[in-house]
Amino acid sequence: MIADEILKELRLIVGSGGVKTGEALSLVHSGSDERNLDAAVMVTPRNTGEVASVLRLCNEQRIAVVPHGGRTGLVGGGVSAIGEIILSLAALNKIESLSADGGTAVVESGVTLLSLQDAAAKVDLATGIDIAARGSATIGGMISTNAGGMEAFRHGVMRHRVLGLEVVLPDGRIMSDMAQVTKSNEGYDLKQLFIGAEGTLGIITRAVIRLAPADEFTATALVACPSATDAITLFRKLQRSLDLLRAEFMARDYFTLASANLGPASLPAFTEAPAYLILEIDAADQQTAQSALEEALAEAIEEGLVVDAILAQSEKERTEIWNIREDSSVVDRVHPNGYWFDISVPLQELEMWLTHFNEGVATLGPDVRGFAFGHLGDGNLHVGVAGAPDKDAAKAIVYANLRELGGSFSAEHGIGLDKRQDLHRFVDPVKLALMRSIKAMLDPNEIMNPGKVL
Amino acid sequence: MIADEILKELRLIVGSGGVKTGEALSLVHSGSDERNLDAAVMVTPRNTGEVASVLRLCNEQRIAVVPHGGRTGLVGGGVSAIGEIILSLAALNKIESLSADGGTAVVESGVTLLSLQDAAAKVDLATGIDIAARGSATIGGMISTNAGGMEAFRHGVMRHRVLGLEVVLPDGRIMSDMAQVTKSNEGYDLKQLFIGAEGTLGIITRAVIRLAPADEFTATALVACPSATDAITLFRKLQRSLDLLRAEFMARDYFTLASANLGPASLPAFTEAPAYLILEIDAADQQTAQSALEEALAEAIEEGLVVDAILAQSEKERTEIWNIREDSSVVDRVHPNGYWFDISVPLQELEMWLTHFNEGVATLGPDVRGFAFGHLGDGNLHVGVAGAPDKDAAKAIVYANLRELGGSFSAEHGIGLDKRQDLHRFVDPVKLALMRSIKAMLDPNEIMNPGKVL
Repeated sequence: MIADEILKELRLIVGSGGVKTGEALSLVHSGSDERNLDAAVMVTPRNTGEVASVLRLCNEQRIAVVPHGGRTGLVGGGVSAIGEIILSLAALNKIESLSADGGTAVVESGVTLLSLQDAAAKVDLATGIDIAARGSATIGGMISTNAGGMEAFRHGVMRHRVLGLEVVLPDGRIMSDMAQVTKSNEGYDLKQLFIGAEGTLGIITRAVIRLAPADEFTATALVACPSATDAITLFRKLQRSLDLLRAEFMARDYFTLASANLGPASLPAFTEAPAYLILEIDAADQQTAQSALEEALAEAIEEGLVVDAILAQSEKERTEIWNIREDSSVVDRVHPNGYWFDISVPLQELEMWLTHFNEGVATLGPDVRGFAFGHLGDGNLHVGVAGAPDKDAAKAIVYANLRELGGSFSAEHGIGLDKRQDLHRFVDPVKLALMRSIKAMLDPNEIMNPGKVL
Repeated sequence: MIADEILKELRLIVGSGGVKTGEALSLVHSGSDERNLDAAVMVTPRNTGEVASVLRLCNEQRIAVVPHGGRTGLVGGGVSAIGEIILSLAALNKIESLSADGGTAVVESGVTLLSLQDAAAKVDLATGIDIAARGSATIGGMISTNAGGMEAFRHGVMRHRVLGLEVVLPDGRIMSDMAQVTKSNEGYDLKQLFIGAEGTLGIITRAVIRLAPADEFTATALVACPSATDAITLFRKLQRSLDLLRAEFMARDYFTLASANLGPASLPAFTEAPAYLILEIDAADQQTAQSALEEALAEAIEEGLVVDAILAQSEKERTEIWNIREDSSVVDRVHPNGYWFDISVPLQELEMWLTHFNEGVATLGPDVRGFAFGHLGDGNLHVGVAGAPDKDAAKAIVYANLRELGGSFSAEHGIGLDKRQDLHRFVDPVKLALMRSIKAMLDPNEIMNPGKVL
């Protein structure tokens, strides 16, 4: 429980409207992960100075602080407990500036991805990163989790979009490194420590984001490939010859389940194959995009890289194709209580990983099913295992050899609460020891998002 | 001086051929920055284990270690003193693997950029980063200085090409984070600390590098623009509509001096203008590249963004055009004893910065001249001031307002010895304090590249 004396001080810092407790707090929380519900106090500072004052107070009083962005995380990074304070960045929601010439935006950390995408689109720019939770996910949250998404093979992950950062340290000091340029080598790049730290080292209050040119005219196709290796060969070919925007992968079992349960009624019945891709390219005009993609796919069919392809002829067909990939919750609807994993596999190992995965799933029992899909360019797979006896049995199959292959057990969702055991198992012990030293150095009283990551 | 006892121990670790002193050492050093000449001992370990053993010994004995890559740095980062040991990474020169499917290479840190470029080209890939010193500069050195170059606006700087890293810490511990994937969020991304640390926190021994698709058919043009702002507008336009590979900027004074003193005899006399660009694009075939660039430039002339343009019609013309930009030492030949700076200016501020720069140079005296050129996409300018009374006078003009504008006094060459004062002057004091804490944490005995950066 937070003492009345503390609540009073918090109200002095952020105004009485900025401190919510009890009833008012549960209203704010409704609809989000139920594990977020425990903290009895939420503070909503209105600027960096207020964030600093709140942290200074909490550090002195040894009160734990759990930062909240858009609360779209999937690993429990925003979970709070009784006696902790939730610090919401919702009021830091200004796009301070956006320069078309500079190709940059200066934003407060509570700005949603969608707001920034909309503002960028007005000057023919884009964020260079896109995730499904764009309407709620905040720039600060995406930086704290180093978000990924569908465009990472072109523009990198969130870390690569951040040019500058302002961070409030646990003791209330403000570190300002708001460079607006790609090339800035001014000593150790300490902002990198806070990117992907999931709020355990400080609170991100402002950022400079590098924008990317907007895509103009796109063509979309669904293709079936004889193998994952053929899908990769096709990907590399298109990446060289066209302006390839997206390349989403679906293994056979996922595609079969999703297409059977979602429609698409108006799309022709589609060939069964081990690997499917949704490909999207950009060109100078719509006609060029369509014909360039059609030509490339005709060539790929001749070369045996593709066995069948549908080129979307309308926005409706495009939506139907994307729906197969994007409404992945269809797996949970058909097979409730599956276990999900978020991994990266080096592309040269993908075929082997898939073979081992399918074989491994079969060994778990006749009713166990495995579903894999994701972002081909990064080898980032979202993997579901339904009907397994327990999570560890599924994990043993999904994670087998992943580290030795150069992959990752934690691709784009982060560690939070849920993957701490995996972190301790897979991460280099020297790196883990340094992580602990860094945490002790920056947050000796362990007030920042305790229990997450480490 | 290094004691005989220590030399004996070093020979036990790296073999007697791996320890050079006196005469043998000065031979190795000939031709490089003369400030590198002081250390009396150079050790050349053959693998990570030997690097670790050398550092463990030096840490116990409190002997300073100066790492050497290709010794192409420009800020004195590899300077050594009597009593220090140079640790050369020259023997760690293996490309361990390179995967066309994966788009990655695993290399030892002493591999030169050129070797990796050659190996990547064999499978239609490129390094995604290019600098003039490619023949000598090593991957480890480029990571340690977070190198930039001409392709950063497309593919980012060196930091963005590094997927995995192996580092030997000052106490001899080895931190291994050799992920081969773009998406890997496994706790704090500690490898980022060593990228750009200029060898002051540890020694990079291996890395995983993300490769990029190779460019296939290119067209090159030299264009004159009525202003820097028009040059930027043109850059943004081409970036959207074409596959723009390079966009190098030259201000009037630099272009006039360079073209007058270098030739190009066979190029037609070229219009005088405030801003020049060398543009290079890529397309599916040579003919398409030429005509796409020609068309785009014709349009730009109509729109008033360009006043004159030469499209290279042969490899000879292409070389002549590039020579104007690349042989920038022409400035030093004509105006010896100039002062050079390496800065980043946000593109939206470039016109204003150039105006202030030209005005400022004029105030220094009638014979003082200013020369600016660089990588337009990043706003990265290399700036020379010739005939100024002293470096501080030149600096005051070049650095004026740079930090307030969101730029950087240190773009791609690093801090080394030469920019330490600037670092203390411009960098946020909280960041500086944290840098010191990190240094004390990782290198409490201050053996790693002492006196550099901090």
